[in-house]
Amino acid sequence: MLDNIGISLLGAGNVGSSVMNTLLTDSKRFQVLIGTNLKLQKVLVRDLNKYRKIFKYSSFTDNFSDILNDSKTQIVVEMLGGEDPAYIYIEELLKSGKHVVTANKDVMAKYGSKLITLAEQNKVSIRYEASVGGGIPIIGPLSRDLLANEIYSISAIINGTTNYMLTVMNKEKISYDEALLRAQNLGYAEPNPYNDVEGIDVSYKLAILCGLAFHADVNPENIYCEGISGLDLKDLEYANNLGFTIKLLARAELKEGKIVCIICPSLISNNAPLSKVDGVLNAIQLKGSLVGEVVFEGPGAGALPTSSAILGDVIDIAKNIKYALTDPANNLLNKIEVSDISSFNSRYYIRLNVSDESGVLAAISGIMSKYSISIASVIQTEADLKLQTAQLILTTHEAKREKIDLAMEEISKEGKVVKICNLLPIVD
Amino acid sequence: MLDNIGISLLGAGNVGSSVMNTLLTDSKRFQVLIGTNLKLQKVLVRDLNKYRKIFKYSSFTDNFSDILNDSKTQIVVEMLGGEDPAYIYIEELLKSGKHVVTANKDVMAKYGSKLITLAEQNKVSIRYEASVGGGIPIIGPLSRDLLANEIYSISAIINGTTNYMLTVMNKEKISYDEALLRAQNLGYAEPNPYNDVEGIDVSYKLAILCGLAFHADVNPENIYCEGISGLDLKDLEYANNLGFTIKLLARAELKEGKIVCIICPSLISNNAPLSKVDGVLNAIQLKGSLVGEVVFEGPGAGALPTSSAILGDVIDIAKNIKYALTDPANNLLNKIEVSDISSFNSRYYIRLNVSDESGVLAAISGIMSKYSISIASVIQTEADLKLQTAQLILTTHEAKREKIDLAMEEISKEGKVVKICNLLPIVD
Repeated sequence: MLDNIGISLLGAGNVGSSVMNTLLTDSKRFQVLIGTNLKLQKVLVRDLNKYRKIFKYSSFTDNFSDILNDSKTQIVVEMLGGEDPAYIYIEELLKSGKHVVTANKDVMAKYGSKLITLAEQNKVSIRYEASVGGGIPIIGPLSRDLLANEIYSISAIINGTTNYMLTVMNKEKISYDEALLRAQNLGYAEPNPYNDVEGIDVSYKLAILCGLAFHADVNPENIYCEGISGLDLKDLEYANNLGFTIKLLARAELKEGKIVCIICPSLISNNAPLSKVDGVLNAIQLKGSLVGEVVFEGPGAGALPTSSAILGDVIDIAKNIKYALTDPANNLLNKIEVSDISSFNSRYYIRLNVSDESGVLAAISGIMSKYSISIASVIQTEADLKLQTAQLILTTHEAKREKIDLAMEEISKEGKVVKICNLLPIVD
Repeated sequence: MLDNIGISLLGAGNVGSSVMNTLLTDSKRFQVLIGTNLKLQKVLVRDLNKYRKIFKYSSFTDNFSDILNDSKTQIVVEMLGGEDPAYIYIEELLKSGKHVVTANKDVMAKYGSKLITLAEQNKVSIRYEASVGGGIPIIGPLSRDLLANEIYSISAIINGTTNYMLTVMNKEKISYDEALLRAQNLGYAEPNPYNDVEGIDVSYKLAILCGLAFHADVNPENIYCEGISGLDLKDLEYANNLGFTIKLLARAELKEGKIVCIICPSLISNNAPLSKVDGVLNAIQLKGSLVGEVVFEGPGAGALPTSSAILGDVIDIAKNIKYALTDPANNLLNKIEVSDISSFNSRYYIRLNVSDESGVLAAISGIMSKYSISIASVIQTEADLKLQTAQLILTTHEAKREKIDLAMEEISKEGKVVKICNLLPIVD
């Protein structure tokens, strides 16, 4: 019988410290769950002195080889974030026969299928529940519980930063800039918020979900991705008046044998459950051939929820080690292309800034009709007398994105249109 | 290498037929997922002639021994429902070395820990994802993904029949009897609705969830259980006026080393996610030491969603068979008592029918104050002139159930009180 299962950590930041603390304080409970003691071996940090002062625990190292070559370490948790050096480290660990648990969405989105294959070849596990949706169990359910389903579509709010910003903009009528500042002050947004607000973070997570849902290797760079920085408080207010809430929605669906992915601010009907997902919460809605619609909701970030996902994976691997089990093979990879969004069917919300002169609506509706786009509602605001412009808010019936884009191009050339302020899909 | 993995079914009703059809039509997809063909061996039915007419598939049997003794059957799916003869069948199957997947909440609630131990002793698996929440993955997440958490509490809407009834009562202002009739006409309620409307079905499911969440063996008969048959449309309307929605809520929490379970109609704040779970949907909210709050929502019943859960379990077991794996041991059983609800702290909604005379409110509030129960709000309706009675609706601040029960007993003896119509907890 094994006396101990050795675990080492890469990184001791917010999440790393929380994992380390939980391993140390809950060790008895974990021992009962696993049937064997889980022993913390080594923790990789940048600044040895800093951590030695904070924690009594002393096996810190600033040298990755100490962990790679530690024969007592069987499981390594990677919490460095970013691609470099995490990807190389994970590769080396798997090759050396160590199991890996990672929270790294960048690495899993870009190299997931390669690493899963590498793990299989080396008869070890790689687990990544924490890479999407923080503490919400979603990788597990997609990999196992829902496996009998053909998954038709994913609709997800999987970025807490932007969801927090949109929630406070919406509820407190503050501007995008104010909302960003507040998110930064609360630690929800980084000093450079680019990856969050432009949807890059979401594109990694959606790629990982697509891999599991459609058994396909989706390159995050092939995902159409539009962030929230182009949103104005006005858009949120007009959407509200129309009965919708704007969320940064990640969607993917199987369509004619291809995957269509779209990440963009979207108008969600106030009756739909996703419209109620506020603040830093995340939610993932799946539509499956058997199950119909299921929704998973919870904290999408934070040190403790992320630890929940990481340690769930760790316990599972430790049980496998204890009972000399491996993960069953993954026979899943399909060749499915990601198509562009030109065939994406949706209703649309369009906000235009137009000259305050006669014939504007006639010109615009003429162009829409030329592309067979049917207008569902029109609101024209009172003109701004100084600028001599007005806001025109249109919603359309369902139309192909291709047609919408052609119409928008023609509308942008129409002299009476000052600016196309926003074009957003509507999700009923 | 195995050529086939044999699977047999007990029962070919709604769920059974759906599982059978999916196994036959999706066999290629399942073969890719598992790496081996899943071959339908035998299906146990009551009336051989009836089924032979409907399905082309011919290996029906009305003799359980045909399946028990079929050496090619490695996995058996039990979909008979009820305790007898399902429990005996499952026991015999496990003893004979066959893996079992069951949708049977009665059996798992009453004999779950016994059967799990029996399966371990015989080195086979018993799986029961379909027994709670239909297609919603909840047994899997609690058994694996959330295992690093101490689960503090469960709040769940896990009976589609009653949730449908409460939803239509609430939205269409129809009576309990009308709602029941409608549920029966739609096939959501059985001709004898007792187990659903009185919360018995919920008590089985909550016992199963407690087993997983608290690693304890909870007898469903020890769970405090109150159904919806005592609800009046009036209660739903008063609750609405106060900003709440009434749902049949199942709750369990760890408190001072004991589990407190309570199933009863409860007032849920309209801001809480569970208040929005309508119709036949189910939702389960868990609070864990690391993850915080997570909510799982989806279809809680129906042939296809239930098949999703069953076949998810089947695929998982089949992969284990293919790769010669077993489930890791379950080291989990704690000795935790279920306490009665006397120590259950909650706010309460109380509806009384009182004489239309002076001093009523003084008498009642005097009794409440005697038991240190603080009143949060009072509504007294206009008197019914014919009956000379009025409705008095009180809400309290948080109080121990024990105190509430003592106060209610004294109030029931107060001459000016005609009837205590309802006493329901409030969940903020």
